[in-house]
Amino acid sequence: MASQIQPHSPRQPIAVGILGATGAVGQRFVQLLADNPWFQITALAASERSTGQRYAEACTWRLSSDCPVAVRDLPVQPCEPGLDCQIVFSALPSSAAREVEEQFAAAGYGVLSNASTHRMDADVPLLIPEVNPDHLGLIEVQRQRRGWGKGFIVTDPNCSTVGATLALKPLYDAFGVRRAVITTMQALSGAGYPGVPALDILDNVIPYIGGEEDKLVHEPRKLLGAWSPEEGRVIPAELRISPSCNRVATRDGHLETISVEFERRVGVDDVITALRDFRSVPYALGCPSAVEPTIVVRQEPDRPQTRIDRDAGRGMAITVGRVRPCEVLDAKFVVLAHNTIRGAAGGSILNAELMIARGMIA
Amino acid sequence: MASQIQPHSPRQPIAVGILGATGAVGQRFVQLLADNPWFQITALAASERSTGQRYAEACTWRLSSDCPVAVRDLPVQPCEPGLDCQIVFSALPSSAAREVEEQFAAAGYGVLSNASTHRMDADVPLLIPEVNPDHLGLIEVQRQRRGWGKGFIVTDPNCSTVGATLALKPLYDAFGVRRAVITTMQALSGAGYPGVPALDILDNVIPYIGGEEDKLVHEPRKLLGAWSPEEGRVIPAELRISPSCNRVATRDGHLETISVEFERRVGVDDVITALRDFRSVPYALGCPSAVEPTIVVRQEPDRPQTRIDRDAGRGMAITVGRVRPCEVLDAKFVVLAHNTIRGAAGGSILNAELMIARGMIA
Amino acid sequence: MASQIQPHSPRQPIAVGILGATGAVGQRFVQLLADNPWFQITALAASERSTGQRYAEACTWRLSSDCPVAVRDLPVQPCEPGLDCQIVFSALPSSAAREVEEQFAAAGYGVLSNASTHRMDADVPLLIPEVNPDHLGLIEVQRQRRGWGKGFIVTDPNCSTVGATLALKPLYDAFGVRRAVITTMQALSGAGYPGVPALDILDNVIPYIGGEEDKLVHEPRKLLGAWSPEEGRVIPAELRISPSCNRVATRDGHLETISVEFERRVGVDDVITALRDFRSVPYALGCPSAVEPTIVVRQEPDRPQTRIDRDAGRGMAITVGRVRPCEVLDAKFVVLAHNTIRGAAGGSILNAELMIARGMIA
Amino acid sequence: MASQIQPHSPRQPIAVGILGATGAVGQRFVQLLADNPWFQITALAASERSTGQRYAEACTWRLSSDCPVAVRDLPVQPCEPGLDCQIVFSALPSSAAREVEEQFAAAGYGVLSNASTHRMDADVPLLIPEVNPDHLGLIEVQRQRRGWGKGFIVTDPNCSTVGATLALKPLYDAFGVRRAVITTMQALSGAGYPGVPALDILDNVIPYIGGEEDKLVHEPRKLLGAWSPEEGRVIPAELRISPSCNRVATRDGHLETISVEFERRVGVDDVITALRDFRSVPYALGCPSAVEPTIVVRQEPDRPQTRIDRDAGRGMAITVGRVRPCEVLDAKFVVLAHNTIRGAAGGSILNAELMIARGMIA
Repeated sequence: MASQIQPHSPRQPIAVGILGATGAVGQRFVQLLADNPWFQITALAASERSTGQRYAEACTWRLSSDCPVAVRDLPVQPCEPGLDCQIVFSALPSSAAREVEEQFAAAGYGVLSNASTHRMDADVPLLIPEVNPDHLGLIEVQRQRRGWGKGFIVTDPNCSTVGATLALKPLYDAFGVRRAVITTMQALSGAGYPGVPALDILDNVIPYIGGEEDKLVHEPRKLLGAWSPEEGRVIPAELRISPSCNRVATRDGHLETISVEFERRVGVDDVITALRDFRSVPYALGCPSAVEPTIVVRQEPDRPQTRIDRDAGRGMAITVGRVRPCEVLDAKFVVLAHNTIRGAAGGSILNAELMIARGMIA
Repeated sequence: MASQIQPHSPRQPIAVGILGATGAVGQRFVQLLADNPWFQITALAASERSTGQRYAEACTWRLSSDCPVAVRDLPVQPCEPGLDCQIVFSALPSSAAREVEEQFAAAGYGVLSNASTHRMDADVPLLIPEVNPDHLGLIEVQRQRRGWGKGFIVTDPNCSTVGATLALKPLYDAFGVRRAVITTMQALSGAGYPGVPALDILDNVIPYIGGEEDKLVHEPRKLLGAWSPEEGRVIPAELRISPSCNRVATRDGHLETISVEFERRVGVDDVITALRDFRSVPYALGCPSAVEPTIVVRQEPDRPQTRIDRDAGRGMAITVGRVRPCEVLDAKFVVLAHNTIRGAAGGSILNAELMIARGMIA
Repeated sequence: MASQIQPHSPRQPIAVGILGATGAVGQRFVQLLADNPWFQITALAASERSTGQRYAEACTWRLSSDCPVAVRDLPVQPCEPGLDCQIVFSALPSSAAREVEEQFAAAGYGVLSNASTHRMDADVPLLIPEVNPDHLGLIEVQRQRRGWGKGFIVTDPNCSTVGATLALKPLYDAFGVRRAVITTMQALSGAGYPGVPALDILDNVIPYIGGEEDKLVHEPRKLLGAWSPEEGRVIPAELRISPSCNRVATRDGHLETISVEFERRVGVDDVITALRDFRSVPYALGCPSAVEPTIVVRQEPDRPQTRIDRDAGRGMAITVGRVRPCEVLDAKFVVLAHNTIRGAAGGSILNAELMIARGMIA
Repeated sequence: MASQIQPHSPRQPIAVGILGATGAVGQRFVQLLADNPWFQITALAASERSTGQRYAEACTWRLSSDCPVAVRDLPVQPCEPGLDCQIVFSALPSSAAREVEEQFAAAGYGVLSNASTHRMDADVPLLIPEVNPDHLGLIEVQRQRRGWGKGFIVTDPNCSTVGATLALKPLYDAFGVRRAVITTMQALSGAGYPGVPALDILDNVIPYIGGEEDKLVHEPRKLLGAWSPEEGRVIPAELRISPSCNRVATRDGHLETISVEFERRVGVDDVITALRDFRSVPYALGCPSAVEPTIVVRQEPDRPQTRIDRDAGRGMAITVGRVRPCEVLDAKFVVLAHNTIRGAAGGSILNAELMIARGMIA
């Protein structure tokens, strides 16, 4: 469908700002955007404590590669409309996100948010470009309802939702998914910085992450839901998910075991084929952050492994392995997704790219 | 029932040998038996490479406390009948266990085995004293069928089976359990020594442990099965279990998330009550390794944690937490068991204690 | 000398309070004092945020064993004189310690401090009972100079100082020590709680600990210095120490490599003998926390190891190994000390025990 | 000097083989050579167990990126002369290296070895291209003495030697270095695969690595020694080094604290300047693996850190930080080098590149 129309690509890089630019996700945005041909970072904003400083001073850079030269001398500005850019990526904490993101949208900025605040709002797209690109139809609803002109808010899902939902999507479409039992083993970077004290996690597993299971119950239902242009809303998918979320001592990469019940009898080979045949809409549209395959299916008995597979597809692919029959439901498998790339900054950037390719940001 | 009859206790310590005494589980046997008033270690046996040496020379002691003084000078002998002891604890690898354990039993020794070899044999008790003490009735069947005199083989379950089965036992008895989905996060010591290379597990999760899931499917069915004196066999329980087994970077303690479907409608409070009310048969019989409660139920949202809770009840109690409704099955919770104490050496020792208390070893 | 006089021991337990009772070191004080026959915890104090709550509520207990029953219901009080006890153990942060500890001493309390604030004050004993018990002579100087009645402040050294100084003491006495080059590999618990973020230390070494090297330069000189009753002061030892302090991913136990230059030619065997022959003054006096040997000397090529040896002597002994010639100075070896027992709470408690045995607390 | 003559570069890639291609260092060779424009992998050899299989089958690939496509289908051959290539990189264990490497050299192959076997042979260059390129003069001596035609053996130093020697080189040249005390904190990959069991290193430091300290005493003296064309030998440098080698729980990157005594009075600024001004001979010659700067000097108080800095200069640069006065010797600092790139495979490859640039391989 999308491929019939000639996809757009920006004639010159889109000017972008980053809200919460000094934090863990903010740094990932900086790192990924610095190499992205469709964007140019023109504004960095953070909390008052940092404003006025150069970015390199205000920010303790924690990623392996060095802080990109192009942004080192940018001044850190307050998180208020007035930034010199067209769209903003928001890495704000949920508490700050509500007010600030709406201010930016009202002032005409496109807001690509990684915060949880607006995800479940009925008129805000919760978007994974490979899963539910048509949910962008909500933008018009949102603008009308909120009286916003060209501003908007688009959100990406929680880091533990992305891997599960991408893996469930082709199965949901092909066979119907009634129920899924999911246990996550989530990386430290999912808790931000400073996040988990080393004394709490060395030689330990913590079987609890506040608020996480609730997100994993509800977000996939919205993501797999049907966009109804007539009703101007997303009709949630019916599937029921039972999550158990755990923190383990890994740096990046959320590993999840998933047992699934289908609406009809399905063989393991059918599951593998459906996963393998999954095609990426944003890749077909030429989005620079999109990869093909988005779902890497491995046959080795002991894969995916967190450390080895998290960077598949530059961190934008998920890896599925150990597809096998489930003794209780129908099939089970293991999923891995990079939580701060695919599950946070990279996901938001891909959302913006999809909107550019669709001509919604120009 | 058992409590009506006066339980036995040994007038003098039972002389015991340890097969495979220099390995990881063998060392745990040595450590736990050295402090146990019902036993005295009189013989240590290991592979040919070690025989003839003093135990302290043959063995690189790896537990935190020092090697007990009482055994340091014992000579390491070959794993053949002729050891000066009444019963042997077997920490042999599965491959060696088949022949050697049968030789000892045929020669009149009681064999308390931690190996997987004989666990599923129809005439060998797979025993957790708190769960299925009546399965000891199989000993007579075993002796008759195999033509053994006073020798016997009794096994304990796999380290990932113990925690799950102990937690399921009171629920199975009270409500019936139809199905359970289990994901394990298992400690390094479960793989023995040298076991998992550090390069394989630092900053990683490995979603596969060879042979482990199969054991978790079958062993609980035997353990929760019904002993039929008439038929001289254990009728397996009907429940279906779907396991996903993972290795994580913890030293000791297997953590498991478990979702359960009951045969009838059950509230979370009923589950907690059933777990809390569970009483230990071997504790009532005065077995020194038994603890009460065997099932510690915690109410904090983030417990049990591997490092904090694995030593509950000197490593012989399991800890259950986060009991809550399951969105897919009926209830879910988290279980933790110390894999090398409760799940290996300590479990075998408790098996022997139960047999002593029942007058089957004297 | 001390052994000629009959040592004192308390007829009934001394009533003690703990300042900063809810933090990491405070919890260690609670844990160790609960089992100590010479003391009874009668007061717990912490910052305003906690006051008024029961201790079990106010404190997130993080040690492996459970919070002792005897203190669970004690109310948390403010850190002000008026606590119902004779002496206080201070686990306060340095910033708070200056004012609060002096208030308590002025009000007649004995203050056994683990804070760095007063360590280098000329009239405050910096005390390791096995090293410099005679420095307690400073108490009289202190009381006179500061106009305190029966109150006093006694400090214990920094956690990285204790192991090095205990190992150097017998060498300093026997051979003279001119210079030492020390590299530390320090555990996470040395940074308190929450302390080091897991993201900063997983798969990493941090070659810097703020303020640590300065302490390791100066504290051993005071500890090994000579008490001059005539001058009423401690004359610092002449030795020069060059420290390099590193944080590594271990829970407890500071490991240190030490190269030493003596004042005269000394063989490796002499070094080993001097370490082996070292005797503990507080052990001879019957102090319950003292152990013999205080210096465990190991001969294996690969010991001490942090995890295996940190609990030697219930955490109150240090372990020295790999004593060998140094290619640059004269000899080198490896030292391990438990930083939160020997190097913090346990050390302060032993200081109080020495004062009791000497009749200075009654 | 070298820059006066026009450096060579290969008109077409040199055909290379790898001995021990399936092991940890062998895989690094494959990974680095696959991207190197001066070489083409044409032969892979390993132990008998693997010969006959395709490389992708014979080898369990353990690096993050996937096994390069170009070598997957190459057959694994035995480690015997007859391989279709001009030079071989040897990742053989020391035991196998002696005989095999000499066989290859005698048969006319250039052997670039990472094994320790021949490092201290008087007629074998122990080479770091930035440090002692003139030691290649030994090749002629070697060929004459051993009767080899165009074959040769060139070795690279031990992984813990490289960082220390690169940092000492400019200081040795500028100020003279008399003595150095070095403590290493070495990564797991230095022990090969499977290497260190996870149970031995989780929450632990092991203060011993067999044979390591001896290498760190002797190799820098040869590396910093003077090539005497007249005598046809290297006159070892006089400096004395005292190493203490420790294994810590990091994946890659050896961190070392170094205290240095100079032959004359030198300020910290002079040290920093000398390190900063160091220039790379192989970089000037256009060697593709060489980087500039080879010595990255950092000013932050807490750098270099193992995880953050090990990939500096694609793993071929070392990082020096915390340059400051030493209380015992003259100056001290911290050095980090990537042990499997700079300290193993990458170092050997750079050795070959230097020989190509010098026209010694063509």
